[in-house]
Amino acid sequence: MNRDAVAQAAARLRDGHAGFIRETPLWRLPGAALGIECREVWLKLEQLQTSGSFKARGMLNRLLSNPVPAAGVIVASGGNAGIATAAAARALGVHCEVFVPTVSSPAKQARLRELGAQVVVTGAVYAEALEACLARQRATGALLTHAYDQPEVVTGAGTLAWEIERQAGGLPGSVLVSVGGGGLVAGLAAWFEDRTRIVALEPELAPTLHRARQAGQPVDVAVSGIAADSLGAKRIGTLAWELTQRWVRDALLLPDTAIREAQLWLWKELKLAVEPAAALPLAALRCGAYVPAADEAVCLIVCGANVDPATLVG
Amino acid sequence: MNRDAVAQAAARLRDGHAGFIRETPLWRLPGAALGIECREVWLKLEQLQTSGSFKARGMLNRLLSNPVPAAGVIVASGGNAGIATAAAARALGVHCEVFVPTVSSPAKQARLRELGAQVVVTGAVYAEALEACLARQRATGALLTHAYDQPEVVTGAGTLAWEIERQAGGLPGSVLVSVGGGGLVAGLAAWFEDRTRIVALEPELAPTLHRARQAGQPVDVAVSGIAADSLGAKRIGTLAWELTQRWVRDALLLPDTAIREAQLWLWKELKLAVEPAAALPLAALRCGAYVPAADEAVCLIVCGANVDPATLVG
Repeated sequence: MNRDAVAQAAARLRDGHAGFIRETPLWRLPGAALGIECREVWLKLEQLQTSGSFKARGMLNRLLSNPVPAAGVIVASGGNAGIATAAAARALGVHCEVFVPTVSSPAKQARLRELGAQVVVTGAVYAEALEACLARQRATGALLTHAYDQPEVVTGAGTLAWEIERQAGGLPGSVLVSVGGGGLVAGLAAWFEDRTRIVALEPELAPTLHRARQAGQPVDVAVSGIAADSLGAKRIGTLAWELTQRWVRDALLLPDTAIREAQLWLWKELKLAVEPAAALPLAALRCGAYVPAADEAVCLIVCGANVDPATLVG
Repeated sequence: MNRDAVAQAAARLRDGHAGFIRETPLWRLPGAALGIECREVWLKLEQLQTSGSFKARGMLNRLLSNPVPAAGVIVASGGNAGIATAAAARALGVHCEVFVPTVSSPAKQARLRELGAQVVVTGAVYAEALEACLARQRATGALLTHAYDQPEVVTGAGTLAWEIERQAGGLPGSVLVSVGGGGLVAGLAAWFEDRTRIVALEPELAPTLHRARQAGQPVDVAVSGIAADSLGAKRIGTLAWELTQRWVRDALLLPDTAIREAQLWLWKELKLAVEPAAALPLAALRCGAYVPAADEAVCLIVCGANVDPATLVG
């Protein structure tokens, strides 16, 4: 999982299924437009990606990189990875089974069924759904897509970083990104390495990376809170652990109140409809958890929009 | 109102109040990504503009082009022009009165008050609110901003077209845009002239341009339907009439069902939260009212997002 692998994934996604992966807008604004004291804020509008989140990149990359057996593909997911897998499977015309925990939103479950997936709702948290999924995979031999801890999923997510650099014709001073299982931050780290400052952000109530750093290795954590349905992995992925240890210095925790405030602000002031997980980068700026330099260009990864829009007003 | 005037407005907006007018993303996708049989679809995401619609361009241009008296500014608006005027007035630190008809949404009225405007709710339709507004303006001497029928408002809206051409480094084959009073289509016509094909789109239930063409001159029409709160002008503006007669060949009507279907699709498939008026361009493609050529790049103006997000799911 290095820059070459990410570049190869970008070529594979471009050639693999025309029009499935979208080049999402990189919206560059002066910091003043958001009331942030820095030169520029870049909003990478990846919530506009096919399937409503960045996950489509990793999932299509996984499916294109492996032979898909007759049993099709199978995944356990708090929601977005399942939706992305189902969308990719439908595009490629293969069967898809998705295991989701009961904490996942009814809207996400309905979306999965609509995409033609067979949905199994089991387990209170993601880890339990994963266990059931793995048992089923052993029985059927289906191709497993993991929500975050597979090389093709990580490098697929990394194409988001590759795309930002190509769109901007250069690098931002920092990249702020939310972390659940860590597939996205790992992909960013694989591409950016130490060429920009990657700031990993987690809810206080779902601190997989933070606790791993305290313990010196990935450990199980209790997860809850506003972003648990998409950032609710039980522990940081092993791939994400390795890549973040190497390339990511900053790992910050944010309270749910700051995440919610930023989510509401994004709708009210920018008309961006996003899920809580996608609001962590702006929350870090607005609550002062991350203070950029005056001449800094800060890139915020707006990672998903699988949300009930009725929740966007306070 | 010609290309020079639009270019001057663009410079004025850039220099007038830093960070107020945003350069909104021009999202270029292959037609296949939207299921449309054409080479490219360009989505101009102007619903992300300050104040939630393109109207901020015209209103700031009007305020920057004239001395503002002590009585401040005054406007009659179905909603978006009022919100844009209030936002521009707040940015410049001047007083603002907004007259709105009772058909305007409670959410828009609340937004106006929050922006510091004095709100007067009067009249069943826009024309009645305008009459009351004009009487008040004669009494106070405030600077009037008209929702669509002033040169600075038209050329301000035209900066949207100027921006598209600059962003793309060229012209689309066609530009699809919704029409109420006609300020936006007039601005596009002032900039694009006949260098691209401008397709004017109206709800069947608010056909100001269509009926004017039938009559050979602007005439009053009854307005109702899903987009009436933002496209509910009673007749096409005189400036829009002149500019569209000169530069716009196509004026198409769309049923509310097609507009609503496109609005729902924009949220479900693209995660764009937009008001009904902003959905007409995609509706024209999806219902076949406008059929682009196979090698055409079609630009859709996504003009506003002042909508209750709870209405985005069917």
